[in-house]
Amino acid sequence: MRLLDEANIDDIAVGAAILGSGGGSNPYIGKLMAREAIKRYGPVQLHTLDELDDDDLIVPAAGMGAPVVAVEKLPAGDDIVRAFHALGKYTGRAPRATMSIESGGMNSVRPIYLAARLGIPVVDCDGMGRAFPEIQMTVLTAGGISASPFAMSDERGNILLMDAVSNRWVEVFARSCVTHMGAIGAIALYSATVKQLKAAAIHGTTTLAEKIGRTVREARLKERNPVDAVRAVVDGFLVFRGKISDVDRRISEGFAKGGAKMAGSGAFEGQELQLAFQNEHLVLRVDGDYVATTPDLIAVLDSETGAPITTEALRYGMRVAVIAFPCAPQWREPAALELVCPRYFGYDIDYVPVEERFAS
Amino acid sequence: MRLLDEANIDDIAVGAAILGSGGGSNPYIGKLMAREAIKRYGPVQLHTLDELDDDDLIVPAAGMGAPVVAVEKLPAGDDIVRAFHALGKYTGRAPRATMSIESGGMNSVRPIYLAARLGIPVVDCDGMGRAFPEIQMTVLTAGGISASPFAMSDERGNILLMDAVSNRWVEVFARSCVTHMGAIGAIALYSATVKQLKAAAIHGTTTLAEKIGRTVREARLKERNPVDAVRAVVDGFLVFRGKISDVDRRISEGFAKGGAKMAGSGAFEGQELQLAFQNEHLVLRVDGDYVATTPDLIAVLDSETGAPITTEALRYGMRVAVIAFPCAPQWREPAALELVCPRYFGYDIDYVPVEERFAS
Repeated sequence: MRLLDEANIDDIAVGAAILGSGGGSNPYIGKLMAREAIKRYGPVQLHTLDELDDDDLIVPAAGMGAPVVAVEKLPAGDDIVRAFHALGKYTGRAPRATMSIESGGMNSVRPIYLAARLGIPVVDCDGMGRAFPEIQMTVLTAGGISASPFAMSDERGNILLMDAVSNRWVEVFARSCVTHMGAIGAIALYSATVKQLKAAAIHGTTTLAEKIGRTVREARLKERNPVDAVRAVVDGFLVFRGKISDVDRRISEGFAKGGAKMAGSGAFEGQELQLAFQNEHLVLRVDGDYVATTPDLIAVLDSETGAPITTEALRYGMRVAVIAFPCAPQWREPAALELVCPRYFGYDIDYVPVEERFAS
Repeated sequence: MRLLDEANIDDIAVGAAILGSGGGSNPYIGKLMAREAIKRYGPVQLHTLDELDDDDLIVPAAGMGAPVVAVEKLPAGDDIVRAFHALGKYTGRAPRATMSIESGGMNSVRPIYLAARLGIPVVDCDGMGRAFPEIQMTVLTAGGISASPFAMSDERGNILLMDAVSNRWVEVFARSCVTHMGAIGAIALYSATVKQLKAAAIHGTTTLAEKIGRTVREARLKERNPVDAVRAVVDGFLVFRGKISDVDRRISEGFAKGGAKMAGSGAFEGQELQLAFQNEHLVLRVDGDYVATTPDLIAVLDSETGAPITTEALRYGMRVAVIAFPCAPQWREPAALELVCPRYFGYDIDYVPVEERFAS
């Protein structure tokens, strides 16, 4: 166990936004919320799974919706408390702690905010090791953990509970409802025992996010290139450097969908990169050839500061570096891969691990 | 208290379909389900509100969705049991009985089916005295009773619970979800004590439905005109006789919306009637002039047999009689009228009680 205070939050938010692969919402907002809560309620305990009892009940919490909207609407925070309590009431068992369901700017620190407000611990693990746009897209689904019971609340105070026959059905109903919540809601889901999570979850992701964020911060202090430092710490590959030449973004069925084009510079002069996203970055092509795809991680960074640029922040003219790095190994098992492979998102190609693509 | 057996069901289903004003789904299917359940589990107790304790909890149950679909998909019945149990579990109190939320072919007899399966009584009252397309459109809403907690289930076994900040918000979320359930779901809602229902509900509607159904049956036996007999028993007005010349029906946002035209015959020769509906009949015009509007009741009957024709059964060439009759007096109070007046449905006219329109 260690304590997370305000200083830790900055690193976690930056690192998680890089793991978020363009999704998980703006890290700035989540960071502010978590810091304010820690200032008011005190530091938050971060536990590893091994430090908890196998029978302890853990209830992950998150925000859901299109990240474009999250920038315009600052969450008050009562919604996530309501969702968490509604789930606890429904299951009839007091949760021992909360955790992140995904790694992403907002959804890595929202559970810390919740934990500070309620005086409960956060567990150092998550269900994706990155961010993905749909509820069933977790290694927990592949590991047989149900997203139900599922609780959802909005800023008005509406509470929805779902007990669905599959995690995909939770996604269908919740996505349908969140569009009526102004496209943003707070959720609690995938409640599980520590024993279940030991087997199915991705361990140590809060600590990994913090390490990545610290790497960026220290590189800036030492006037080293932050992009190179991030690439090294995640065992990644530099895919591209250049300038954003085109952004196409729309809200469709509760998602932020679209793409961006970049014109190469330096070693990439004369090349064009095409990025496609659905809340998160899905596939990268350079001059039409695939160079990285889901479930591997794709991060767009400010080429000077290394700051992660989420899909809603992509703007014409930005100078960026793009890196790709391997997903958690659980994603490469068949039952998990079919949930998030390129074909699921409509791309007619097989998944090839990013390190194989760059091996030549 | 009296017992409802198979013989009562036929009359209730026919009478309720006439009260349903074109909505509440096909009476034939609901009738079959309720009769089968009574045959298997025995007769059902029908109580008046006065026969129950003021503190008893009553949980109404119904089907929700577009009636066009209900004809094609025979409900198995497990969905309504699941919704009812989910609501009871959520409230933490055992319901004493169930009741109809609306009068309509399916939704007047589904609670009887449920009561037979679970061995509980049905209460002789409802929340509309007719059928309406949206959840918040009840005199219970006007009387301050919440539709939340709200439970919904489908044939797959999905369960949704909603605790919304208004009855209108229940409608928004539930309508959004039911479109994903193949446009048909089973619901439990508006749980209330007997004391609350004594003040807010419309009393005696099961008995009224049965009386209307019996009137049709006896008129046929005695070779009297069933349309005239129905008109007399409901204190109604004969608006039109003629032949359906056009039907326009579509599924939109989970509703069956559209209209029908009829060419007059006999005393109505040369006139055209225009009927508009959204699950239920909303407004009637003859040669462009309004002759009856929501919330007054509009029934389209087979001109020979008096059988009610629901919106999904309207067909070109049918020979029909159309009658209109006064809604329950609770609907004419301002708080209730604003929920279901012509303007709510997009018609730019004030409500005029049907008996005033026909007084001249």
